[in-house]
Amino acid sequence: MAVSDKALFSIVFLFTAFVSSISASESQSQINVWPKPRTFSWPSPQASLLSPNFSITSPNHQHLSSAVARYLRLILTEHHHPLVTPTVNITGPPLETLTIIVSDLAAPLHHGVDESYTLIVPRGGAANLTAATVWGAMRGLETFSQIVWGDPLRVATGLFVWDSPLFGHRGVMLDTSRNYYGVEDILRTIGAMSANKLNVFHWHITDSHSFPLLLPSEPDLAGKGSYGPQMQYSPEDVKKIVEFGLEHGVRVLPEIDSPGHTGSWAEAYPEIVTCANMFWWPAEAEWADRLASEPGTGHLNPLNPKTYQVFKNVIHDVAALFPEPFYHSGADEIIPGCWKADPTIQTFLSNGGTLSQLLEIFINSTFPYIVSLNRTVVYWEDVLLDANVKVDPSMLPPENTILQTWNNGPNNTKKVVASGYRAIVSSSDFYYLDCGHGDFLGNDSQYDQKAGSNTENGGSWCGPFKTWQTIYNYDITYGLSDEEAKLVLGGEVALWSEQADPTVLDARIWPRASAMAEALWSGNQDKTGMKRYADAMDRLNEWRYRMVARGIGAEPIQPLWCIRNPGMCNTVHPFV
Amino acid sequence: MAVSDKALFSIVFLFTAFVSSISASESQSQINVWPKPRTFSWPSPQASLLSPNFSITSPNHQHLSSAVARYLRLILTEHHHPLVTPTVNITGPPLETLTIIVSDLAAPLHHGVDESYTLIVPRGGAANLTAATVWGAMRGLETFSQIVWGDPLRVATGLFVWDSPLFGHRGVMLDTSRNYYGVEDILRTIGAMSANKLNVFHWHITDSHSFPLLLPSEPDLAGKGSYGPQMQYSPEDVKKIVEFGLEHGVRVLPEIDSPGHTGSWAEAYPEIVTCANMFWWPAEAEWADRLASEPGTGHLNPLNPKTYQVFKNVIHDVAALFPEPFYHSGADEIIPGCWKADPTIQTFLSNGGTLSQLLEIFINSTFPYIVSLNRTVVYWEDVLLDANVKVDPSMLPPENTILQTWNNGPNNTKKVVASGYRAIVSSSDFYYLDCGHGDFLGNDSQYDQKAGSNTENGGSWCGPFKTWQTIYNYDITYGLSDEEAKLVLGGEVALWSEQADPTVLDARIWPRASAMAEALWSGNQDKTGMKRYADAMDRLNEWRYRMVARGIGAEPIQPLWCIRNPGMCNTVHPFV
Repeated sequence: MAVSDKALFSIVFLFTAFVSSISASESQSQINVWPKPRTFSWPSPQASLLSPNFSITSPNHQHLSSAVARYLRLILTEHHHPLVTPTVNITGPPLETLTIIVSDLAAPLHHGVDESYTLIVPRGGAANLTAATVWGAMRGLETFSQIVWGDPLRVATGLFVWDSPLFGHRGVMLDTSRNYYGVEDILRTIGAMSANKLNVFHWHITDSHSFPLLLPSEPDLAGKGSYGPQMQYSPEDVKKIVEFGLEHGVRVLPEIDSPGHTGSWAEAYPEIVTCANMFWWPAEAEWADRLASEPGTGHLNPLNPKTYQVFKNVIHDVAALFPEPFYHSGADEIIPGCWKADPTIQTFLSNGGTLSQLLEIFINSTFPYIVSLNRTVVYWEDVLLDANVKVDPSMLPPENTILQTWNNGPNNTKKVVASGYRAIVSSSDFYYLDCGHGDFLGNDSQYDQKAGSNTENGGSWCGPFKTWQTIYNYDITYGLSDEEAKLVLGGEVALWSEQADPTVLDARIWPRASAMAEALWSGNQDKTGMKRYADAMDRLNEWRYRMVARGIGAEPIQPLWCIRNPGMCNTVHPFV
Repeated sequence: MAVSDKALFSIVFLFTAFVSSISASESQSQINVWPKPRTFSWPSPQASLLSPNFSITSPNHQHLSSAVARYLRLILTEHHHPLVTPTVNITGPPLETLTIIVSDLAAPLHHGVDESYTLIVPRGGAANLTAATVWGAMRGLETFSQIVWGDPLRVATGLFVWDSPLFGHRGVMLDTSRNYYGVEDILRTIGAMSANKLNVFHWHITDSHSFPLLLPSEPDLAGKGSYGPQMQYSPEDVKKIVEFGLEHGVRVLPEIDSPGHTGSWAEAYPEIVTCANMFWWPAEAEWADRLASEPGTGHLNPLNPKTYQVFKNVIHDVAALFPEPFYHSGADEIIPGCWKADPTIQTFLSNGGTLSQLLEIFINSTFPYIVSLNRTVVYWEDVLLDANVKVDPSMLPPENTILQTWNNGPNNTKKVVASGYRAIVSSSDFYYLDCGHGDFLGNDSQYDQKAGSNTENGGSWCGPFKTWQTIYNYDITYGLSDEEAKLVLGGEVALWSEQADPTVLDARIWPRASAMAEALWSGNQDKTGMKRYADAMDRLNEWRYRMVARGIGAEPIQPLWCIRNPGMCNTVHPFV
């Protein structure tokens, strides 16, 4: 740490001590930053103009410099008009400069990297943004952009922010297989994530429905398995997306789901996929004998050596395209009927083999290779917790394995961390963004309901729709011991695309992902331990309007009237 | 009827007799028209090219001619690519002409106008579209546009369509008070309605939150009560919208909600509004003692003569702006606490008056005036069915009164028609498009749910989200006798705007309003009386893609994979 840094940190320390005495009584601020910083002190709200010559000085760094240029443009052009204008005095000279200091320019954007920052905007003189890493500096730049408003531009002064996320993994999962999204859609989503201080774009690239990723070693997978030449991601597209992520402090974590959810692979390699292109639920068959969890059949065949040849080419290319040290290999929803449809597997089973042994063969033949590419492997929880088809935990060393939970609310997260694994939480009861807009199956007699009744829950398996309140209030470490809680890396909201495509992308993700973003960044409780729903609605509403102005089509959560009449849309009744 | 018409009708009659023998065995067509016509016969599917010089000849009529020009442009430029390409032979000469014949050019676009049409596209020779009215001709033009596809353009031939709606009133209600929509948003919605053969745009213009309608006689209502100068509808805007409606065969039915839902009137006239700008649910108060059904208080004061002076100016202007013979006067959700907050009303009540008498005073002072302007008055059901505040039915003669039902599923519709009134059905259990995306109230302790549980239904009072299946399957005459059913004019899906604005307008309305459009046009059952869910999904999916291509941001209902693989996303199991 350089001397100047030390001096600054002393100032910060003193300032912190000063404000800590008043921050407990802090009420709703007139300036809202989303997600709410851990410490946001603006004890006597004042502002100054932002100089037309305002500049940001920062260390030279490929990605930070790009972010600085972007934020400077945003800050000078956004002219945000708060829906309720802050009543603050404009005093002191215009703010001319924001100076960024970063202690460690080399820290890569990996899980657990220090994202903390300190932002001081004094009354007079330059503003300072101090961070351990460039990624923390990007978070601080976002915060700074949110304390500037109006025309002419004003900036809050006499303000101190110390900030750092509660959880290191804060993600959005997007499924680009069931429906295709253009590169611009993905970039816009990553940009919006960055504005919400989310840091992992979990890209569920492939599934049974289409294989849109064009891989140099296996071009036929997309060539034959995508929805068409206009609905593929080229290596150049991926490079653009990864680079865009780095400029926004967002990791791009690829998932190639396997061995289930691989029907699309059969277009190029029918011989390595069992039950491909079959009707998913044969007439008269029991649910247990279906071939897939939903329409779109196909599992990789663990007994065919060709499977691993193709698989390794795929992983090799993906590892080359994505620098991210986590690699998601899926392994969810192995459906017995699909493997049982294959003659070689039938022989294997009739000779005493089991379905779980088949999965173990697959994992044994792929996991070490992925690890050899210096990747930590993320699997869906099913690989260990599925009722029928699962591997022995001894095959998956916790140091190389992370499990993403999605079933049974908090219960499966508890099981995963109690077994010593790290967990990423995507509970379908709370974090699945696609739920509640009906079922996508055709010809379903369940649709024929009595006209006098409507008891369905939104018509999808995971209905109802998860409201922002549901998401905001979820505690991803619920029921865990302190030690267990440390194994929860964070969470991800997930948008599966049975009923989503670019038409509804923004509105389906935002502002609900913003709700998770705050809960995982600074929590969903105030200093007294009370849930923050009391003020989160107003702040989220304001933030939603700001996102819309920034080009993100977030859905509205209140009438405009509510934000024009602060407090009037609250609920105050005897039961509060 | 002219001789040429007679000759054509003979042809139609013979053609009908010919196809009736085969239509029962008709299976899913390769060309889908939404809503499905009553009779669509294409016994041996063939097509011809559409001539590059294709033209439409039609009688000269202000609105029909505009529609013809629009459809000609659409037909020649749309180049719809069916997601599954029809496998039909292209035979015969290119189609050069569609000839439109209308028997009664003068019939105005009123409720119950004949919308039937017959469309014949022979193998060789001109196509013919015959309709009783220009409005029926517009429906037929829409159908014709949907049987043209590809590049070069192809048109289905050897095709006969006879079509006519089951219900005359098929509407979409949009609330432009809680959030504002631009004129372009409204025009786009009316255009999309026309493509779905919907014919009533019920414009819930004003409410407590804003009064966006600029009226020449009462300019202060919008001047002070709108969200701002950029969020008003000028008389020119209204004229544009009404005219656009006429060109699309869509009536524009205005609603000025009163005497409740009038808080916004208080900005200009505080003296005529009780309980305005008060907190809607006072602390410690019981639910019964709240002041409004939701945040945003204010009821017109029936005891203040000034109320009627303003009200009559409003109605006078609205009647001048909107030629539509129906006028919607609201009258829903009178909340006792709001009237009780007023001193003059307190005196009235303490002298033995009742709240229902107050409402009767209001209705008696306004209903005859509205009727005197040659309007049929539509009220929400509450005016007769509210548990606490309602008028005596003798005050509302059925010949001048229509009731729009929204509570209690089919039960209130039954009550309304059993009393001899005509009904428009907007059951909130089935037809409310805004439900299920959470609650908009702030500071609500109900949001603080146990992390381990998620039992809510989508978080809004009318949750869950109404899926297209829920809407499609609803039978608006459920439980009625044949005589009672005749009093059901039709139905309306409704988009209240607590949590909707232009950002989500298209996706919230479409394709769910399309589901109602078909159910009210040709029903939700096939010829055998079976619900049509078996094929409706595939057809609606196709139609959704076509709407998106036409610029309507309808939400997806299935992965693209499903439409690429017909039948594969169906459910076939023992319980079907």
